[in-house]
Amino acid sequence: MNAHYFNPVHSVYGAGALSSLPELLDGRRAAVVTFPEARALGLVARLEAVLGDRLACVIDCISPNPDVQELSQTYEDFWRTCAEVEVIVAVGGGSAIDTAKALMVADESGRFDALVSGLAGEKPFTPTRFKRLIAVPTTAGTGSEVTPWATIWDRARQKKHSLHLPQTWPEYAVIDPELMLSLPASVTLQSGLDALSHALESIWNVNANPLSDTMACSAVHEILAVLPALMQQPQDLGLRGRMALAALQAGMAFSNTKTALAHSISYEMTLRYGLPHGIACSFSLPMVLRSAIGQRADRDAVLERALGAPLAEAPERLERFIEGLGVKTRFGDYGVSAQEARAMVLHAQGGARGKNFIGRPTPTETLT
Amino acid sequence: MNAHYFNPVHSVYGAGALSSLPELLDGRRAAVVTFPEARALGLVARLEAVLGDRLACVIDCISPNPDVQELSQTYEDFWRTCAEVEVIVAVGGGSAIDTAKALMVADESGRFDALVSGLAGEKPFTPTRFKRLIAVPTTAGTGSEVTPWATIWDRARQKKHSLHLPQTWPEYAVIDPELMLSLPASVTLQSGLDALSHALESIWNVNANPLSDTMACSAVHEILAVLPALMQQPQDLGLRGRMALAALQAGMAFSNTKTALAHSISYEMTLRYGLPHGIACSFSLPMVLRSAIGQRADRDAVLERALGAPLAEAPERLERFIEGLGVKTRFGDYGVSAQEARAMVLHAQGGARGKNFIGRPTPTETLT
Repeated sequence: MNAHYFNPVHSVYGAGALSSLPELLDGRRAAVVTFPEARALGLVARLEAVLGDRLACVIDCISPNPDVQELSQTYEDFWRTCAEVEVIVAVGGGSAIDTAKALMVADESGRFDALVSGLAGEKPFTPTRFKRLIAVPTTAGTGSEVTPWATIWDRARQKKHSLHLPQTWPEYAVIDPELMLSLPASVTLQSGLDALSHALESIWNVNANPLSDTMACSAVHEILAVLPALMQQPQDLGLRGRMALAALQAGMAFSNTKTALAHSISYEMTLRYGLPHGIACSFSLPMVLRSAIGQRADRDAVLERALGAPLAEAPERLERFIEGLGVKTRFGDYGVSAQEARAMVLHAQGGARGKNFIGRPTPTETLT
Repeated sequence: MNAHYFNPVHSVYGAGALSSLPELLDGRRAAVVTFPEARALGLVARLEAVLGDRLACVIDCISPNPDVQELSQTYEDFWRTCAEVEVIVAVGGGSAIDTAKALMVADESGRFDALVSGLAGEKPFTPTRFKRLIAVPTTAGTGSEVTPWATIWDRARQKKHSLHLPQTWPEYAVIDPELMLSLPASVTLQSGLDALSHALESIWNVNANPLSDTMACSAVHEILAVLPALMQQPQDLGLRGRMALAALQAGMAFSNTKTALAHSISYEMTLRYGLPHGIACSFSLPMVLRSAIGQRADRDAVLERALGAPLAEAPERLERFIEGLGVKTRFGDYGVSAQEARAMVLHAQGGARGKNFIGRPTPTETLT
């Protein structure tokens, strides 16, 4: 089978890169989509100053993990009142960028139901109207700025939808490490570990290809070198910049492979135990690594490039790295019994992301 | 200043990837542009079989280093007779792919003069009609499959034109190492060294950025590891594949930086001494490296990542590598006097590509 690589996002990187927004808009009108705290943080005022008369409106009611219930009104208001807006500028973490992706596409009706029915596979959704997206991440980890996917939740129906259209690739990713200086330690840690998970999951992945491998190895090297130092010096702009670039490269890697078993496990851990996504998708990495090693010679070679030789000792080194950041790496640490963990891993292996994993069923002895 | 990275080419990689052409065409009609020997090599017959009724015509009169004189008739015939063709499939080295890029764009007149006047800066060229491009390199080195540029020569006027439009990015790069198994040793060597030059020139470049650096380091590692082995085992499909991927990554790196001093020097060496491009743009790499080291701390760090520590010894190691492949690395080896070499380097530093180099004037003592 041939390997494919494609990532059409134009990335712009540098301290102060936010100021390049008018140039990237090139005369087009923009709507800003951001998180509620952005106003109090002075971010909305800064965006208003930078965008000037190019700014049509600010939508700042974005909740974490966007839900179809909450999004409905926002979506229909946006398509009714902002018809002339050509570009959405999403400023925030994964939730703001994912919400913006949902806002990018509409059919003639402009009704949110039409999109949701499409996501749920109930009725085909044929968008005819499109906005472009400039994604400005304020965290270093989600990778959403360089993928076409958005996760939209339907908590009432206990469902997780995945939006993915050719039109939902961002046009630009603007990576400005200055925006990350004020991140709380917990978010720096969780998003950093999310990026590490994206990079490793793209390697032990049936969809891996040589270009995603290059990006993933570069990301892993940098995250292992930078994240512990950044936790000690959160105000260091240089470290923030390196972490942001590592997250960008991890994003470019998994933009072509999707995630694998660790993410599949995370969905259950978040749903049942309320574990934050960045912890839920990374605590199991040493365990999944143990299961990945020895499955395929070419994947072993790339894992060794990423994690160093000897590969046999890499799971223990990775465990020490994650535990060193204060994150426990066993199911038991989170109150999950050995029996429940086994069932959870089996279930995760059968999920869409779990099937991307190269390995055979995870040995049960490593689970507790 | 912000760093920018953008490369919208969809790459498809694998032994036998040529067979994926019908899928990539997705019903569109294609013209094949290739080199004259392709028919005798059986390549045209293979393309006819693969493309079937999607194939509208075959243009196989492509000369090395395409010249405006020779191209004129081909261009006007193509736009007159192949109006219904949507995609050009270019199969060959840099010359075939560059020629195809010139064929991609036309104004209403369909006259080649209009394009050439635009290239020469005499009259604005405003293309209104476009074809898409699928680039299928048969050499590992040019990188043209992942850049939007084409070099078109005007030997009568002793000029080198550079075509570069937003529309001349290839849509797909199809990297099939099987097509490279029959390459003569000289072409394997020259194209391999061209790729090494692309990678290093993207690093000691004022336009370098963190993503081009990642691609460039990966390319340099592979070329240093693979090229000598490939020269010994030209029929090894695995080595051909690794070299093709290294050349692709070098192409992605310099697609965002353009080349620098070594390429600027090469134009004179090719024009005056008839040196093949791959030799002309690589014999000076150790010399240019000596001049690059110590100019900028961040560039030194990336050069060390690419070439290994200690960096101070890297020029000598690179010299041994290139000489080990049978390529001399001093101007004097090519019959260029010290005085002429000094003048040539000064001239090259003032050229468009020379100005991309991070260094100060090359110390004259290294030139002979």
